[in-house]
Amino acid sequence: MTTAGTQDWTPGRGDALLIVDAQNDFLPGGSLAVPSGDDVVPALNRYAAAFRTRHLPIFASRDWHPANHCSFVEQGGPWPPHCVMETHGAQFASGLNLSEAVIISKATEPESDAYSAFENTDLDQRLKKSGVKRLFVGGLATDYCVLNSVRDAVRLKYSVVLLEDAIRAVNVQPEDGPRAIEEMLELGCQPATVESVGLTPPRTPAVLTDLYQLAMLKAYHDRDMNQTAIFEFYIRHLPAQRNFLMAAGLEQVLEYLETLRFTQQERDWLISSGRFPADFVDALKDFRFTGDVDALPEGTLFFANEPVLRITAPLPQAQLAETRIINILQMQTMAASKAARMVLTAPGKTLLDFGLRRAHGAEAGLFVARASYLAGFNGSATVPAEPYFGVPVFGTMAHSYIQAHHDEAAAFKDFAHSWPDNTVFLLDTYDTLQAAHKVVALARDLKKEGIAIHGVRLDSGDLLQLAKQVRSILDEGGLHDTKIFASGNLDEYALEQLIAQQAPIDGFGIGTRLAVSEDAPTLECVYKMQEYDGKPRRKRSEGKATWPGKKQIFRTFDAQGKMQEDHLALENESLPGEPLLKPCMRQGKRLSPPAPLEQGRTHGARQLDQLPEALRSLNPAPPYPVHISQKIRELADRLDQEPS
Amino acid sequence: MTTAGTQDWTPGRGDALLIVDAQNDFLPGGSLAVPSGDDVVPALNRYAAAFRTRHLPIFASRDWHPANHCSFVEQGGPWPPHCVMETHGAQFASGLNLSEAVIISKATEPESDAYSAFENTDLDQRLKKSGVKRLFVGGLATDYCVLNSVRDAVRLKYSVVLLEDAIRAVNVQPEDGPRAIEEMLELGCQPATVESVGLTPPRTPAVLTDLYQLAMLKAYHDRDMNQTAIFEFYIRHLPAQRNFLMAAGLEQVLEYLETLRFTQQERDWLISSGRFPADFVDALKDFRFTGDVDALPEGTLFFANEPVLRITAPLPQAQLAETRIINILQMQTMAASKAARMVLTAPGKTLLDFGLRRAHGAEAGLFVARASYLAGFNGSATVPAEPYFGVPVFGTMAHSYIQAHHDEAAAFKDFAHSWPDNTVFLLDTYDTLQAAHKVVALARDLKKEGIAIHGVRLDSGDLLQLAKQVRSILDEGGLHDTKIFASGNLDEYALEQLIAQQAPIDGFGIGTRLAVSEDAPTLECVYKMQEYDGKPRRKRSEGKATWPGKKQIFRTFDAQGKMQEDHLALENESLPGEPLLKPCMRQGKRLSPPAPLEQGRTHGARQLDQLPEALRSLNPAPPYPVHISQKIRELADRLDQEPS
Repeated sequence: MTTAGTQDWTPGRGDALLIVDAQNDFLPGGSLAVPSGDDVVPALNRYAAAFRTRHLPIFASRDWHPANHCSFVEQGGPWPPHCVMETHGAQFASGLNLSEAVIISKATEPESDAYSAFENTDLDQRLKKSGVKRLFVGGLATDYCVLNSVRDAVRLKYSVVLLEDAIRAVNVQPEDGPRAIEEMLELGCQPATVESVGLTPPRTPAVLTDLYQLAMLKAYHDRDMNQTAIFEFYIRHLPAQRNFLMAAGLEQVLEYLETLRFTQQERDWLISSGRFPADFVDALKDFRFTGDVDALPEGTLFFANEPVLRITAPLPQAQLAETRIINILQMQTMAASKAARMVLTAPGKTLLDFGLRRAHGAEAGLFVARASYLAGFNGSATVPAEPYFGVPVFGTMAHSYIQAHHDEAAAFKDFAHSWPDNTVFLLDTYDTLQAAHKVVALARDLKKEGIAIHGVRLDSGDLLQLAKQVRSILDEGGLHDTKIFASGNLDEYALEQLIAQQAPIDGFGIGTRLAVSEDAPTLECVYKMQEYDGKPRRKRSEGKATWPGKKQIFRTFDAQGKMQEDHLALENESLPGEPLLKPCMRQGKRLSPPAPLEQGRTHGARQLDQLPEALRSLNPAPPYPVHISQKIRELADRLDQEPS
Repeated sequence: MTTAGTQDWTPGRGDALLIVDAQNDFLPGGSLAVPSGDDVVPALNRYAAAFRTRHLPIFASRDWHPANHCSFVEQGGPWPPHCVMETHGAQFASGLNLSEAVIISKATEPESDAYSAFENTDLDQRLKKSGVKRLFVGGLATDYCVLNSVRDAVRLKYSVVLLEDAIRAVNVQPEDGPRAIEEMLELGCQPATVESVGLTPPRTPAVLTDLYQLAMLKAYHDRDMNQTAIFEFYIRHLPAQRNFLMAAGLEQVLEYLETLRFTQQERDWLISSGRFPADFVDALKDFRFTGDVDALPEGTLFFANEPVLRITAPLPQAQLAETRIINILQMQTMAASKAARMVLTAPGKTLLDFGLRRAHGAEAGLFVARASYLAGFNGSATVPAEPYFGVPVFGTMAHSYIQAHHDEAAAFKDFAHSWPDNTVFLLDTYDTLQAAHKVVALARDLKKEGIAIHGVRLDSGDLLQLAKQVRSILDEGGLHDTKIFASGNLDEYALEQLIAQQAPIDGFGIGTRLAVSEDAPTLECVYKMQEYDGKPRRKRSEGKATWPGKKQIFRTFDAQGKMQEDHLALENESLPGEPLLKPCMRQGKRLSPPAPLEQGRTHGARQLDQLPEALRSLNPAPPYPVHISQKIRELADRLDQEPS
């Protein structure tokens, strides 16, 4: 908690982003790996997004060496071969979103090296041509290419903002990185972090977990139990009121995993709590998620027992993440699944999420806004959902606005003058029909000013009858284009009824019952160990037994393209149908940049199109067929025979 | 989102906190007010808490002038009279928690002034005596007493950490503050913020609200609608499964209100969203909550229609805060009320919250941990609940820990060696009774090492039968002191049954059904305008009409001290009974420092003691009598006659 905001470095006209050498060979596993070099990727993605949304230029430099480059040891240079053009090592980090970026290749000739992005490139000319005066610089490595690029930028009279959370040093000597930062600050660079260039959701602390995860981590640490574990997240049974579920929340899980760190504050707290010895806490300093993630793309429909997400990682990493993974995936999946029912029920209607106030805390409200948009809603009232997730947000007035005026008609009129393009009047503060007549009267005056009344909203009473009466009043008053919106304790059942009765309502604001998924406020979801150290595992607890092994879902479709049946099989089985789990992360790195929410929304809409007719009903339908493969059954039987 | 943690300034041995002159006369409304001087109070409370929990010394200096002090204008000095000893103006900020702080009075003689806390005081001697080498300095004002205290501290060879978010400048000249900070940094001070001294929950962004609140704010801004509004938060009807509710969340509401600011990033985003004109957004820069708060202390039991919290503030402030106030109070009240039912049902049993994973997002999990502890739970598994709220946390092992071992007994043994004081073994991974026998066998070996087995946990199956059988096995093995804990889909109904059947279970871990308040996952709670600009208001929407006016609850008790009946009356009515709403904040300032959660927990326990027997039942009881006063009814009738 701070009372003051962080300093502001919001980019604007005259600013450009320079991403220095964020290439595979400089990331862990690369031939010239910068320690924790992959840390810069999520931060750079944020910066790049901030620049893209403002239509500001982004430049990405890269080492682009011939195979016989002079900087390589075999040519007498100081470095192992790296970033050889057209090789994997020279490619940009797989998770880095460089769309709309201009690529600057450097040191492309055998005989000349270049640490600076300006050296023998046209970067300066390009920047000058774009009117750039200030450069935001991040990338790799702090003590070589970043430092040298910054030196040149300062010499060439650019102001420089140094992106402290998006640089990492090689540290051939341990002081190289700090010394480089010191030099750059002395050159007049301003330090910034992602919080200062835009609104982002708070990072998940590593200690946001159950204490038992940390207790187990210590036990694993004591015995070096660090082999690979496989955990799968799935739902044991669908809630009675759900014929399908829609996967949501993967993007937040990936972000959580790629930024999972025990900060100094967290480690200090662990020590000061008196529970953990120093050697264990010290080791947490280097804790990173280095595992693999396979998952259903967001928007995918799924059923009981089907893995939504699989983690393959050293045991302590897979263990620690359990709590937050379930916490994210349950909430968003629940909200997306509830919203999807409304989307199916009200085709062609505008659907907005009004749920923040009655959601369970701040994050629940944000997750509902995101998940309902993914499922096909048109937007949300929750303001940060727009900067955080790109969800369009909407809003006009509450009853208190009307009540604060002595006269309802004056309240409408004032609002129209403040918001001539956003005129949706709330009618039910006192008497809905009287209010509708006031709107008609007001419309005449506003028309002279060029203001049209976009809509009215009903928030209480018999919505069907009121909507019909209000529609008549509006139509009689010539306001045929004025839409009617409704809100107030709505859910898919109420929508179904209103639509069946042909209520003349154009759009709905859905609050509480969506926000808490009222008829199914929890999913029987679990995250269970399927394999450890190469050996499949099965929990046999009464009523809670698991299907063992590393699994895949194969889905087949009928001639009309509708979903036909799923086979749950071991991953290495080859069955007909589309495999649904897709690789997302390998060795802690994303395989592709963060997917825009719109992409999941499109996928979700297509999935809903493929849903068999019977499952579209709000009433319970016969379950969609999910077959457990013979090999899984055999494996389970075999494990059950083993002693525990 | 950052990938690196903020720099660490966790205080330790040799550190002390110096709070400079955080006195009323330097706060807004005081005779020598520092602009936004009250901003420092919440941050200073955090720092003080960090020092107190580590038993490190805290010093608070104060101007303590005689009435004829030389610094006053009338004596030829530069300042208006201020901080005259024993007056209100000289008192420390009402919301500042200075418990365990040493008070240093300065400039106590008519003829000598002192900006520095070291000047003519024994501060240096006291610090040296305590072995202090480094001083953390915050308070008022940056450009006078803070600056001069820091100059002296540096001269006296102390290292100084400057608490950037806990200082504010007078700025007689606009550059005075920045220049003072620059000088202090040049003197070698290290800048820090509260995030760097401990783990704190994320601050609520001002934009965490519904868009319509901001739309209305602009309309109010356009017309200078800034008069005082009164809003009350209350529940329309109790859920069918609740005979009472327990108020919770007030502390988070107060923290939200006292730190409510539109940061530069938020304002930039509002502009860049294209919805709001610059003049409106610029005005948000100075947006502060300057109103009054009256509320039920946390832990108070209440019923339908009774105001839980009242905001009296300029209209835009009261309006903006609506969404987050409901969001906080609903969630925590719902969780506390659900937990209270379990506390009543299971007296003498250990109750722990295991709900984070199935709670709706991160904040919901934290709120459940806090609210259930308030209601009488013994603790939680949710780690950050301890550093954030002081909730004790507990945890041992999951099934995956057992599964990661080839042998269940070896898993138990390893754990006992890693956690000799925290030996609670999970029995149901494979076969509960076999596992119990393994525990008995293991106990003999562990006893030789001085390790006792504290408990076992059952997480599936027929808990009653298993508990009885496990109890027998343990007792036969001589493990009479080994406790049995149970978890797995428990709620108050399951507890009631297990206890009625005398299940030998000592403690329960309660997860999902508590975390989402499964049988009542939402409350019909609202935050409604009762008065604006001195005039009572009433919303008359069908089925959603409000009781108008500024209200108080008067509660009477019977001879046994049990709650008898409540009267809901206008605040200025005088009725028998205890008035339940207490003043918490005036003009944006807390009337007392943040209450420790333990205080609410004690209050909640007393409230549960006072609950009439019938209402303690898990089954619906006849409603507790809440009478609406004649004056409220008359006011409602009168307002209904008025034209809208």
